[in-house]
Amino acid sequence: MEQHSKALLLSSSNCHGYSMLEFAKEEICDFLKKHDVQELIFIPYAQKGYDGYTKTIKNVIDPWGFSVSGLHTFNDPVEAIKTARAIFVGGGNTFLLLKTLYDNNLVSLIRERVCSGDLAYIGSSAGTNVATKSIHTTNDMPIIYPPSFDAISIVPFNINPHYIDKPENEKHKGETRDQRIGEYMEMPHAGTVLGLREGSILHVHGKSLILKGVAGAVLFKKQVTMQQFQ
Amino acid sequence: MEQHSKALLLSSSNCHGYSMLEFAKEEICDFLKKHDVQELIFIPYAQKGYDGYTKTIKNVIDPWGFSVSGLHTFNDPVEAIKTARAIFVGGGNTFLLLKTLYDNNLVSLIRERVCSGDLAYIGSSAGTNVATKSIHTTNDMPIIYPPSFDAISIVPFNINPHYIDKPENEKHKGETRDQRIGEYMEMPHAGTVLGLREGSILHVHGKSLILKGVAGAVLFKKQVTMQQFQ
Repeated sequence: MEQHSKALLLSSSNCHGYSMLEFAKEEICDFLKKHDVQELIFIPYAQKGYDGYTKTIKNVIDPWGFSVSGLHTFNDPVEAIKTARAIFVGGGNTFLLLKTLYDNNLVSLIRERVCSGDLAYIGSSAGTNVATKSIHTTNDMPIIYPPSFDAISIVPFNINPHYIDKPENEKHKGETRDQRIGEYMEMPHAGTVLGLREGSILHVHGKSLILKGVAGAVLFKKQVTMQQFQ
Repeated sequence: MEQHSKALLLSSSNCHGYSMLEFAKEEICDFLKKHDVQELIFIPYAQKGYDGYTKTIKNVIDPWGFSVSGLHTFNDPVEAIKTARAIFVGGGNTFLLLKTLYDNNLVSLIRERVCSGDLAYIGSSAGTNVATKSIHTTNDMPIIYPPSFDAISIVPFNINPHYIDKPENEKHKGETRDQRIGEYMEMPHAGTVLGLREGSILHVHGKSLILKGVAGAVLFKKQVTMQQFQ
């Protein structure tokens, strides 16, 4: 990790018992204020319907004292990101998001600007997946083929958002989340995976990583050990 | 679909209340006997540990009166498939399976031999995913990057194996299966998707498709309508 990176990586926008982003309100406000940011560019590429999705996020975040604009409303997304101070990359489908970021030549640009400390990054769900080393541990369906699974690499490991401990349904024979992550860990290219439960936030501040939020996380290290953080 | 194709596409090998493959025993036996097949080549590429995986399947199917061999035990997989009468492509990780099939130059060979009626195909879970148009509707984690999501295309549509109707966990905010399939249906390249519940089997016999097994299926058509088959 680069020493100037600033990122807030949310497992999800929604958490049981909270309205949208409510569990993360204090962290998001503190993060943006600390970095002296008032304007926030929202990247809605993980979903269809950019206008509606941006409006939903704007309706939540603007009342907190910030001003949200959709990246799709700028004439040139590359120029917009070159001068942005902060972005929020929303959730949806990780494959669609990563492909659209590549199509718009934004992957390496975002990496460079975040690593140099010029761009503060907030991601949620798919927006968190693409902030990591690769999208190998997304839960999403591969609805479109991206040019690579390599992602923005703000952190040099993988995150599994919406991490859930228990079998989803004991009668259902599909793999559990731990089995799926275990399959990844067996790959030669696999490294560490952080399973972020819904309601959890990873705060990246230079080389410091702080787990925040209300739900904890599970760290999967190579040679598959598991470490609980409550 | 080609008029000579013969395939049996299982949602999964395991089904609640049955031992491994038990729910499909009669169909598999009838299918192989009808096509006068005694030797069955098992393709274990969706999992690590080919020997152990092949042994597990052999221990189930050999007592039914057939002889199972792992494709990995042949010197040349291409030559083995060129002379095989029937294959069973087992479940595990769909991305790993498809990549390994491409690495071994087997995708188009299997397609040609199945379409010409020379090779009978049995697939389960990931082995069913790769038998379809593409792997866009797998549930698996993208643990490795395949050269394409295009698959063997024995059928010209997609299947979602392990299809499950209900939200996996009402407190969990990850997408439901229907939402995930709905995201795919919004893609310009998406067509029909058959959600095969665990315990269901799609029997392909030339241009005829017959739903068999114990659990039914859901058909998702473009412009997202849903049709129930009980």
